[in-house]
Amino acid sequence: MSDSPHRVVIVGGGFGGLYAANQLGGQRGVEITVVDRRNFHLFQPLLYQVATGGLSPGDIASPIRAVLARFSNVRVLTAEVTDIDPLRKLLILADGEISYDTLVVAAGARYHYFGNEAWAEHAPGLKSIEDALEIRRRVFIAFEAAEREADPARRAAWMRFVIVGGGPTGVELAGAVAELCHGTLKGDFRAIDTRDAEVVLLEGTDRILPPYPERLSGKARTSLERLGVTVLTNAMVTAIDAAGVSYLMGADETSLEARTKLWAVGVSASAFAQVLAERTGASTDRGGRIEVQEDLTIPDRPEIFAIGDLSRSLDVAGNPLPGVAPVAMQQGRFVARAIRARLKGRQIAPFRYANKGSLAVIGRNAAVADFGSFTISGFPAWLAWVFIHIAYLVEFDNKVLVIFQWAWNYLTRKRGARLITGEETLPEVSPDRPKS
Amino acid sequence: MSDSPHRVVIVGGGFGGLYAANQLGGQRGVEITVVDRRNFHLFQPLLYQVATGGLSPGDIASPIRAVLARFSNVRVLTAEVTDIDPLRKLLILADGEISYDTLVVAAGARYHYFGNEAWAEHAPGLKSIEDALEIRRRVFIAFEAAEREADPARRAAWMRFVIVGGGPTGVELAGAVAELCHGTLKGDFRAIDTRDAEVVLLEGTDRILPPYPERLSGKARTSLERLGVTVLTNAMVTAIDAAGVSYLMGADETSLEARTKLWAVGVSASAFAQVLAERTGASTDRGGRIEVQEDLTIPDRPEIFAIGDLSRSLDVAGNPLPGVAPVAMQQGRFVARAIRARLKGRQIAPFRYANKGSLAVIGRNAAVADFGSFTISGFPAWLAWVFIHIAYLVEFDNKVLVIFQWAWNYLTRKRGARLITGEETLPEVSPDRPKS
Repeated sequence: MSDSPHRVVIVGGGFGGLYAANQLGGQRGVEITVVDRRNFHLFQPLLYQVATGGLSPGDIASPIRAVLARFSNVRVLTAEVTDIDPLRKLLILADGEISYDTLVVAAGARYHYFGNEAWAEHAPGLKSIEDALEIRRRVFIAFEAAEREADPARRAAWMRFVIVGGGPTGVELAGAVAELCHGTLKGDFRAIDTRDAEVVLLEGTDRILPPYPERLSGKARTSLERLGVTVLTNAMVTAIDAAGVSYLMGADETSLEARTKLWAVGVSASAFAQVLAERTGASTDRGGRIEVQEDLTIPDRPEIFAIGDLSRSLDVAGNPLPGVAPVAMQQGRFVARAIRARLKGRQIAPFRYANKGSLAVIGRNAAVADFGSFTISGFPAWLAWVFIHIAYLVEFDNKVLVIFQWAWNYLTRKRGARLITGEETLPEVSPDRPKS
Repeated sequence: MSDSPHRVVIVGGGFGGLYAANQLGGQRGVEITVVDRRNFHLFQPLLYQVATGGLSPGDIASPIRAVLARFSNVRVLTAEVTDIDPLRKLLILADGEISYDTLVVAAGARYHYFGNEAWAEHAPGLKSIEDALEIRRRVFIAFEAAEREADPARRAAWMRFVIVGGGPTGVELAGAVAELCHGTLKGDFRAIDTRDAEVVLLEGTDRILPPYPERLSGKARTSLERLGVTVLTNAMVTAIDAAGVSYLMGADETSLEARTKLWAVGVSASAFAQVLAERTGASTDRGGRIEVQEDLTIPDRPEIFAIGDLSRSLDVAGNPLPGVAPVAMQQGRFVARAIRARLKGRQIAPFRYANKGSLAVIGRNAAVADFGSFTISGFPAWLAWVFIHIAYLVEFDNKVLVIFQWAWNYLTRKRGARLITGEETLPEVSPDRPKS
């Protein structure tokens, strides 16, 4: 081991980056720098709760500095990464540069609209706190507008919520919005009955939660329908604008008037993946994900690891791993072990994802779960979901407090998070509503 | 009592409006409409905690609908009030109008900059959730920029926080920012020591907390100085720009380089007060507050009450009542009683403010309190502050839960609320920082 420390630079403070930093923290001979545009780690699996007014942003965020403060060999930079020079082993920031010996790229993913980027304005995706607050604003403003709207057709358009994409996020959003309408808000209005609201989930394939076993897709559908969600499969969205959404089912095109559309499909790697691929000659898949080798490095660049949602790695059967938190966490831990082994002149076995199961929550007390060897649904699955999320949260905060508070908010239906913030413009409604 | 209900319209869901609605809710023969631009009641006394990353917006907000949902004779409109026609007893909204028999105007206050409105951009005030999040963003971004800034003078400017105004809000903000620097954040950075930060409180008069007894002002000053705050009295601000602030002390003008300036002085009535005064001929004071009679109505308009921060009423000694939550609450209750009495053909005695004391908190475990007959400071005052705030909160939510959660967050120094959200631009720093 040489005298000067081995400089590890980690791009991104999500699950992958933070787990890698956490495992390398305190390691002698290693100096770690975590770079992120944002100053916080976001617990993305609960972002849909922020969007639907169940939790506050602060409930699912932890400052990256605070999480890593105990490691004196870790520093955190809040900065924008713009480019990379792999020959000089330099990471280029918007206002500086930083040298690395080993680089771990874990910059995550974003939504894409299959070339229809104009849809983004009308149907926001759910990746950041800002996205979640914007979705929250739209959902709650819709009820306020409906309460004041005199024209029945326009009122119905305010009370129709369309969610595009039947993956876990779409299913969770649809369930949470339906619960708002049928439960949480039901006594709050005078001119409308929120139970008349319509929540429509559009899925392009023949079933929701396509990566799960078919039986669970069916159970999830039943649970959603019980909450009042209209589930449409084989429905391909063809247009989205301010007024509504159009979709094809077979040869039939249908248009729905809906003021509120949410986007939960079409994830692609964050923009830096493209830059990285160009500079290193790495391949990307259709979603812009960097194709990595079985040790999670880029071909011919053993000093550059790419992990998490931004990378594409395969399981033993040759199928790509899903873009979920457990994959990123395990990859983060693997990278830390690989770096430590290399410093000792050793190699470790290729990365293998240990699938501990998949879960999607449907409303406040139902979920579906696929644990490989067995599947569960309903309340037992929901309990499993709660415990697994709690276990993940613990890892970062070392505090039962945070979990306790989260569970508390969730179970007591914290009301404060229903506030509408941001852009203050209220929608225009027909002013001549007959007195109710 | 006639058959058609008496229509009470309340403008504003702050303390005054909500207390009035709460007291009239369920009253037979009365139909209440609460109009507010925002969908939530804000517990303003804790707003400085949101600004300094101690609490989340959702922790100090309650949806107005949810608070009043149990009263079937109360409806809530999320709408912008633009004008009033007192002859036709019509309140004009941005997209409609609404008739009233009795109007209660409780639209609150905002900051003003004594004619220097250009200062607002550089020194935001603290009235709304958006203000608080913007202040939070500036405070935490300042530390991030200082950590990366190589030039010592520029770094010092990032680490200097100037608070203008030594009233309760200014004192509370200064205490909370000082605690961030000296406590909460002290192990989080590598290149800077947050304890080197300078927090400066500028007060124009000869002591901070001017409405409090002199002895308490002294105690507050000592507490702030113990937390590391530089308190400057008789300091009149003459200029504020992006780089810093200038102030006069006697004949000497001093300029401070400071990237972060906060404004906590110069409250004036919200814009609707001016409209109301023009339409009704009511007088306003220098702060734009409506001068009301001792029954809190506008002269010659017995059907229009103006209460809370937007109005100016006098105590028995002829001094104007302060713009604080307890005044608004008591006025809200008074108005409800007055309306009920009138419906029975009776009158009630003029409004008298029962001063239960004033409190300002200084950091996490000190405060000063003036209860008229006696004053306390330090930890006992802090405990009093906690209990009084808890008591107010209970009134709205009927839930020990909310209080418990708030106390929990506060005592455990909830970290998640330190997230920087909103406008994502990071400040530019000198890129050539020598390696630390």
